[in-house]
Amino acid sequence: MAIADITIIPIGTETPSVSSYVADIQKVLEKRASEGDINYILTPMSTLIEGDLTVLFQVIQELHEVPFTKGVQRVATNIRIDDRRDKADHTMEGKLESVQNKMNNAV
Amino acid sequence: MAIADITIIPIGTETPSVSSYVADIQKVLEKRASEGDINYILTPMSTLIEGDLTVLFQVIQELHEVPFTKGVQRVATNIRIDDRRDKADHTMEGKLESVQNKMNNAV
Amino acid sequence: MAIADITIIPIGTETPSVSSYVADIQKVLEKRASEGDINYILTPMSTLIEGDLTVLFQVIQELHEVPFTKGVQRVATNIRIDDRRDKADHTMEGKLESVQNKMNNAV
Amino acid sequence: MAIADITIIPIGTETPSVSSYVADIQKVLEKRASEGDINYILTPMSTLIEGDLTVLFQVIQELHEVPFTKGVQRVATNIRIDDRRDKADHTMEGKLESVQNKMNNAV
Repeated sequence: MAIADITIIPIGTETPSVSSYVADIQKVLEKRASEGDINYILTPMSTLIEGDLTVLFQVIQELHEVPFTKGVQRVATNIRIDDRRDKADHTMEGKLESVQNKMNNAV
Repeated sequence: MAIADITIIPIGTETPSVSSYVADIQKVLEKRASEGDINYILTPMSTLIEGDLTVLFQVIQELHEVPFTKGVQRVATNIRIDDRRDKADHTMEGKLESVQNKMNNAV
Repeated sequence: MAIADITIIPIGTETPSVSSYVADIQKVLEKRASEGDINYILTPMSTLIEGDLTVLFQVIQELHEVPFTKGVQRVATNIRIDDRRDKADHTMEGKLESVQNKMNNAV
Repeated sequence: MAIADITIIPIGTETPSVSSYVADIQKVLEKRASEGDINYILTPMSTLIEGDLTVLFQVIQELHEVPFTKGVQRVATNIRIDDRRDKADHTMEGKLESVQNKMNNAV
């Protein structure tokens, strides 16, 4: 399973606030998650999605289109993909647990 | 207040696991946070830090050095900075609340 | 036309050098460019590709697979997309010219 | 020597064009380069800077301030750092040559 970390920045919005775009993006994510395609979480800086890599790219492209549908003419999207194939539990939860275990062992 | 979203990838580690480096990076963050310099959270994909921009750059450089102290010869660090100056509560918590409010209003 | 800026980092390579992976990635790009799908350039830090957005995502996924075919078990891919739809010449060349013009006018 | 790859996106600019900000950023870079602190190149997607890591962070912070001095209230800065310490010629030119050599050997 791959994990993608995504920011979608609309450029030329007249105002520094972009939270209305983020809210629309969340609706696309909710729909996709309710269909069982992905899991996702919202952090203060980005959206994290886990799922099959091909599906992730489809969802990312869908999210990238959101600001254009609201009249924005330019979008800067930033994506970090972490794809690990030697480990069954390469999930968002598994990654956090792995760091926690290392920190406990270090004490 | 600025917020930085940081990943630090050691290159040439012999193994795909990097969680031991992440654990060491957390120790630096804990120390800085206990001194009142920053707030931080760990997500499954990165570390988010909020604080004064100049302090953030110092902390980031400190984090970037961690893998070198463990014998790694190459480090790829990725940083996203979100710096907003027209709003007093531009914090990690404030950003999440802002999106939540937009989503509730949209219902 | 969209432009994507891509880095593909293999993790767990035993050696800090990743240029052999970059060379293989270039071969995929050459093939795609010779088929007329994309234009691309190699910079010292990343690969820039311009083309139709859907094609870009296909090519990026193809590039991301390259290190796995060489035995790597984990890949960290970073993508910046710049997609501007109010301007016919939103190309790599057009963007550089635009900055150059602004700098000349400013003298 | 470290290399940094930087994009600085002003948010809330009313217009999708950001080339006037990029031109101002180039002036800061020219000054720093003429003082011998850094080397830099402009690509269609970002600015690449090579130099001492501490100096790079200073220059990046200086560049990040540019849009604020022009009235922008929010700036999203993205930075990729590639820092390799086992090789004397880890420079922008050296990296491109290294890939070129691998491609020639592969023929």
